[in-house]
Amino acid sequence: MLLKELESFIEEDIGYNDVSCSIVPDHRVQAEVVSNEDGIAAGISEAAQIFEYFDILATTDLTEGSAIKKDDTIFTLDGGARSILRAERLALNFLGRMSGIATLTRRYVDRANGVRIAGTRKTTPGFRKFEKKAVIAGGGDPHRFNLSDTVMIKDNHIAVLGLERAVSAARERASFTQKIEVEVEDMASAIHAAEMGADIIMFDNMAADEIEKTIKTLADRGIRDGIILEASGGISLENIGDYARTGIDVISLGALTHSSRWLDISLRIKQIQRTEK
Amino acid sequence: MLLKELESFIEEDIGYNDVSCSIVPDHRVQAEVVSNEDGIAAGISEAAQIFEYFDILATTDLTEGSAIKKDDTIFTLDGGARSILRAERLALNFLGRMSGIATLTRRYVDRANGVRIAGTRKTTPGFRKFEKKAVIAGGGDPHRFNLSDTVMIKDNHIAVLGLERAVSAARERASFTQKIEVEVEDMASAIHAAEMGADIIMFDNMAADEIEKTIKTLADRGIRDGIILEASGGISLENIGDYARTGIDVISLGALTHSSRWLDISLRIKQIQRTEK
Amino acid sequence: MLLKELESFIEEDIGYNDVSCSIVPDHRVQAEVVSNEDGIAAGISEAAQIFEYFDILATTDLTEGSAIKKDDTIFTLDGGARSILRAERLALNFLGRMSGIATLTRRYVDRANGVRIAGTRKTTPGFRKFEKKAVIAGGGDPHRFNLSDTVMIKDNHIAVLGLERAVSAARERASFTQKIEVEVEDMASAIHAAEMGADIIMFDNMAADEIEKTIKTLADRGIRDGIILEASGGISLENIGDYARTGIDVISLGALTHSSRWLDISLRIKQIQRTEK
Amino acid sequence: MLLKELESFIEEDIGYNDVSCSIVPDHRVQAEVVSNEDGIAAGISEAAQIFEYFDILATTDLTEGSAIKKDDTIFTLDGGARSILRAERLALNFLGRMSGIATLTRRYVDRANGVRIAGTRKTTPGFRKFEKKAVIAGGGDPHRFNLSDTVMIKDNHIAVLGLERAVSAARERASFTQKIEVEVEDMASAIHAAEMGADIIMFDNMAADEIEKTIKTLADRGIRDGIILEASGGISLENIGDYARTGIDVISLGALTHSSRWLDISLRIKQIQRTEK
Amino acid sequence: MLLKELESFIEEDIGYNDVSCSIVPDHRVQAEVVSNEDGIAAGISEAAQIFEYFDILATTDLTEGSAIKKDDTIFTLDGGARSILRAERLALNFLGRMSGIATLTRRYVDRANGVRIAGTRKTTPGFRKFEKKAVIAGGGDPHRFNLSDTVMIKDNHIAVLGLERAVSAARERASFTQKIEVEVEDMASAIHAAEMGADIIMFDNMAADEIEKTIKTLADRGIRDGIILEASGGISLENIGDYARTGIDVISLGALTHSSRWLDISLRIKQIQRTEK
Amino acid sequence: MLLKELESFIEEDIGYNDVSCSIVPDHRVQAEVVSNEDGIAAGISEAAQIFEYFDILATTDLTEGSAIKKDDTIFTLDGGARSILRAERLALNFLGRMSGIATLTRRYVDRANGVRIAGTRKTTPGFRKFEKKAVIAGGGDPHRFNLSDTVMIKDNHIAVLGLERAVSAARERASFTQKIEVEVEDMASAIHAAEMGADIIMFDNMAADEIEKTIKTLADRGIRDGIILEASGGISLENIGDYARTGIDVISLGALTHSSRWLDISLRIKQIQRTEK
Repeated sequence: MLLKELESFIEEDIGYNDVSCSIVPDHRVQAEVVSNEDGIAAGISEAAQIFEYFDILATTDLTEGSAIKKDDTIFTLDGGARSILRAERLALNFLGRMSGIATLTRRYVDRANGVRIAGTRKTTPGFRKFEKKAVIAGGGDPHRFNLSDTVMIKDNHIAVLGLERAVSAARERASFTQKIEVEVEDMASAIHAAEMGADIIMFDNMAADEIEKTIKTLADRGIRDGIILEASGGISLENIGDYARTGIDVISLGALTHSSRWLDISLRIKQIQRTEK
Repeated sequence: MLLKELESFIEEDIGYNDVSCSIVPDHRVQAEVVSNEDGIAAGISEAAQIFEYFDILATTDLTEGSAIKKDDTIFTLDGGARSILRAERLALNFLGRMSGIATLTRRYVDRANGVRIAGTRKTTPGFRKFEKKAVIAGGGDPHRFNLSDTVMIKDNHIAVLGLERAVSAARERASFTQKIEVEVEDMASAIHAAEMGADIIMFDNMAADEIEKTIKTLADRGIRDGIILEASGGISLENIGDYARTGIDVISLGALTHSSRWLDISLRIKQIQRTEK
Repeated sequence: MLLKELESFIEEDIGYNDVSCSIVPDHRVQAEVVSNEDGIAAGISEAAQIFEYFDILATTDLTEGSAIKKDDTIFTLDGGARSILRAERLALNFLGRMSGIATLTRRYVDRANGVRIAGTRKTTPGFRKFEKKAVIAGGGDPHRFNLSDTVMIKDNHIAVLGLERAVSAARERASFTQKIEVEVEDMASAIHAAEMGADIIMFDNMAADEIEKTIKTLADRGIRDGIILEASGGISLENIGDYARTGIDVISLGALTHSSRWLDISLRIKQIQRTEK
Repeated sequence: MLLKELESFIEEDIGYNDVSCSIVPDHRVQAEVVSNEDGIAAGISEAAQIFEYFDILATTDLTEGSAIKKDDTIFTLDGGARSILRAERLALNFLGRMSGIATLTRRYVDRANGVRIAGTRKTTPGFRKFEKKAVIAGGGDPHRFNLSDTVMIKDNHIAVLGLERAVSAARERASFTQKIEVEVEDMASAIHAAEMGADIIMFDNMAADEIEKTIKTLADRGIRDGIILEASGGISLENIGDYARTGIDVISLGALTHSSRWLDISLRIKQIQRTEK
Repeated sequence: MLLKELESFIEEDIGYNDVSCSIVPDHRVQAEVVSNEDGIAAGISEAAQIFEYFDILATTDLTEGSAIKKDDTIFTLDGGARSILRAERLALNFLGRMSGIATLTRRYVDRANGVRIAGTRKTTPGFRKFEKKAVIAGGGDPHRFNLSDTVMIKDNHIAVLGLERAVSAARERASFTQKIEVEVEDMASAIHAAEMGADIIMFDNMAADEIEKTIKTLADRGIRDGIILEASGGISLENIGDYARTGIDVISLGALTHSSRWLDISLRIKQIQRTEK
Repeated sequence: MLLKELESFIEEDIGYNDVSCSIVPDHRVQAEVVSNEDGIAAGISEAAQIFEYFDILATTDLTEGSAIKKDDTIFTLDGGARSILRAERLALNFLGRMSGIATLTRRYVDRANGVRIAGTRKTTPGFRKFEKKAVIAGGGDPHRFNLSDTVMIKDNHIAVLGLERAVSAARERASFTQKIEVEVEDMASAIHAAEMGADIIMFDNMAADEIEKTIKTLADRGIRDGIILEASGGISLENIGDYARTGIDVISLGALTHSSRWLDISLRIKQIQRTEK
């Protein structure tokens, strides 16, 4: 992350006069960041950067997306006691939040039978790039980052403009470097969108069997190829298998970011060298 | 929130060239923000500010902490189609994330039998003030905001410095306006901390019955009064009743922010007046 | 633009103690922004926002991309003398720079025979979004905004990684919402890239007749359809007709931003009402 | 430049998830930044800082204002492939834009016969300090940076306030550390301004012979000494000789920044060491 | 001030969760900002902007530099109780600090017998533009704002470079729009500097009679005219009369900002309308 | 301080084109920062960070709060001439302002007979955290940082809400981690506040003997213990002894920040090694 971002996060967590840490003699300390449960690691590079900012030597074998087991060491730390106490919470917040998202993403990926799992824009304001990165770490696809990426024609756009005018307007206004995605709620609209030349069609809140039927119809009409098909809405760890079997290319899930809990990760001091660092 | 914060969030979600919204004719539109499930509303003033930024007239009867039912209208909106499409996701992200935290907080509060429920510093980097505000909306206590608030002597501080030296150093270095909180893991340390004059003692990962015994012992020794006692670690919706009965004053829970899922809230367009706004 | 951006620009141009303007009595003034040459207007909404910031009533009939003639009025202004003198240079700098880009873009568009004209990332640091917007105003395509948009495999990527590995790695790592563009320098690579499934192929510094031959070969092999073909490098107003005839879809030109001069636009005070505003 | 500025420029050019560069194995690479045409180098220190930010060893013999020939090497680079690909465009944009301004400035300087060539405030919003620095690199004078520098009484100030009142008000309100410059359009005003004690008089859009006559008249009246005389408006590479011969001290030209094209500079990879860096 | 500056100041003073103010019912309140002592008002426009930000109607007859007496009303306020309590301290801090500087400046001005009183760069980091503005309000001259204004050759520059080389280098490198000031410590250097063509000569820590003698010598040699002479160092309210009589043009005083105490200004609530605002 | 803060301060003091320093050959220079009077050092770590930013080796034996004598060396510096000239003013402004506050604080502390001396929120906007830090360096207590720290019920709060409702509302709304302070103006209110359970009571503008009487009364009623008593208003170096003898715990003084003058500190170049650094 940029240094100015890092400093904003530090400012938020430390404040102007950190008495708790300043009373601690700045002994050299060895510590470990450990996981208290199985999961997928994410936020490794962010945590490493935080430790480095505080002049802590942080060693790790992991990279974004590494599988970790309960009690695995994520980082071995060597640095001043004060620095470690100051860096602790911010580093753990990155690791906990990002690994939580990566872990849930991986669970969906594991059940998706090769269908691509994607995130959404349902992210914590100000923290999107890290949450998207965590989706990638979990094996998922970040999907578009903001309204200026991939042009996406959603239900509310169609409500105002109509599908046909919306797609042709998008085609004209969009850059040739952008894909055009259309959200549909039934087979007729899907066929319409495909005929209009959508690059991606998203089946919104459609049942798995309806999606399957729609995909077959598109194939029968010879308009399935060259279009990426995405399903979204009402999909859970329980029923994802049904969706994965429909022939869909991508399943996108707000749940990756709006319903993932953090991975439980903590910092343990291993040894204190009682000489001033 | 400050305008410069709001603009940073808008920048993140919209980007530099929003084709999707710009193709929509800017008809006047009436819309509603509705909740798809029961819960506690939070983020009302943030969402209102977002709508106002986009010149959308947003009306609501709710305030932070209002209970809402499935299908309740949170906001009635009247504004340009483009503006509503642009404001939609950011406003919903605030409402969803914050109401999710408020809702989980309220569930804990409801089972806490009057014991105060508090948050922690386990929050999404950059979004802490909104997450703390959501805890308050849910009826909880925000706990300290950052390291420079309330002086908190945690396990790792004590590991380096020892409880006694830590408390007396804190007493000397802290402002008289700050409370001093000591984290303990057993009865002996609790007694020690109380005798040292801690304002708050936090029982970290202690069983409910152990806490109960400790509180009785403190009372028997006449050193319980004037001290706020807090429990944290290993407390869930299932066992919170046990903790609430121990005589504890506060129960703090990382789960409020690290394990709450969003409340499901969406925006529905009700009517489109097909004349340019 | 965001208010915080606008304020940064104002800070740059005004500084901390503007004596020149402060000596002027704040009479009510009518003024005009006029063009001193023919061209395409861009930066209209930016200039309008600047005037509004200074409480100047600014009226215009133009929108982004309007054709203007020498002596045409772009804005009619009514406001305090001091405000107009303060807003003048910043508004003109936006209009001059952006209209200059739009004007040159339109000249290319006019000679391109329907082939899409696109910009590049050769933009003034910090001002890219306005320069891309000016390309759009001129009838051009902004092309990708930054490295995180459309995945683009350029000569230096291929030098390190090889075309085949580069495309397959990109396919795997990119989001399904992104297109993959490959830069080639000869026919063989173009065929290779098409077979690898590139969404866009960019002919870099290839002669018009070579491009024409390559496109024919791709068509003969049945792999031209569904691929967008872009030419770049060595194309000028003089020879663009040759390129436009090759069957190419897009011509991208660094010149739109790196070699356009400003449109000559100035502000003239029309009337001064010698009573304090 | 300040690190926070540099990071803003990087943010603009890279975005949140740079797939193109991340697919490249981070081999150690030797590369060169070369000029594709003759010119004057500027932006050397900015480019050096960009390369350093990305941990690229960048070596150069040039300094701001060095003359360069076609095919000259500006920087020799040694660093990771990914870093070089990430730094490339931003460094080239600085070098191209700034060297373009420096080159055009030098052309004017070379024809100005010792008369000082100066810039204006007609600069790209947000990028002024770099454009002024490029003018200096080309051998020019940056002129005032913003409205709070040198007090400048322009046509529109005089329209509102009158020359006499404007100069005396400026004299009273300005700091003694500031010079006062008056813009005039004819000989009478020039004499008036000189008599009022202007430190600098700028002849705005006056013909060369008119300027010559005016300067002689000032000299004849004994009020030319101690005043700096500046010409601006309607001066080009073609006619600058005429102006330079008038006895003028300074010629200022918006063209330095509003009509200069970039110098054509590119980055070439020379060698790739196919072992992970 | 810019809105983003204002918001930073508000952020500093309010923090994330202002309980003290939020417990107050938002009654409509009339209040007054009053001065508890005689002085010169400054910070009026800053305070007005702060009140406006909080939707408080603030009325005043004063402008920057108005003389005020003990118990004078500076602002009459009408607004919500909460808003007034939130705006109070920040507005008073601006008024107190800035009026304190203006008041001390005026005291020097009153004893300076028409000699110009100027500030220095000895200002509170981050608050310079407001402190310079307060000097102006007090009738003083702000002097240069930063190192890039007026070129100033100080003792340490001369120590490294020598006076002669320093002045000629400055002449060559400075813009023609900038003055060149030279700091001297004795008559010989003053003569030298004058002969070198310095625009301003600053007598640093020289006694009044020495300055007087030097000025006479300069006049005798015919090199005093056209040069501004400034005295600085060791000048106080007690001895300023001696310096003012030397024939000096300007006396600059770090004391204006480094030794001024605040003017005592406070806010009094006059009336509370006990209905919700 | 954060790097981004440091850079903002540098930006303010240096500006865009520092001619004065750039004309100096970058010889290696040894210099000293010395105090011209006795006092208490503060801002040591800030100054050290500034010197480090400019690659100057800065050595010191002092820490925040060290007593210094006239002519004591605060820093020994070794670095490039240009860097030292650029860093000089900013470093001295930090040292001067902060040491001035620390010095005045220490004078109060020395006369306070063990009673704690505290600051207030009467600080220079934008510079509070450094002014609070200087109070600490002087042996004082920073008091609350902003409105979101310690809940403070002041005269204007009580005017609107009444003491009783204010305290109970505060108790309910405040976090358990916050203390509640009540400002009173007479004995009756003090007793009332104590009975309401205020953690801190501040005697506002009460005479020393009145305070003494009030404290005795509180003690007689058995409600003095466990409450921190603070006096503020009308206390000076002359009468602080009277207040210190009243039995008060804390004396807070706006004067520490609003009436302290800077400590006189300057930078002297000791040796210049006339070879390019």
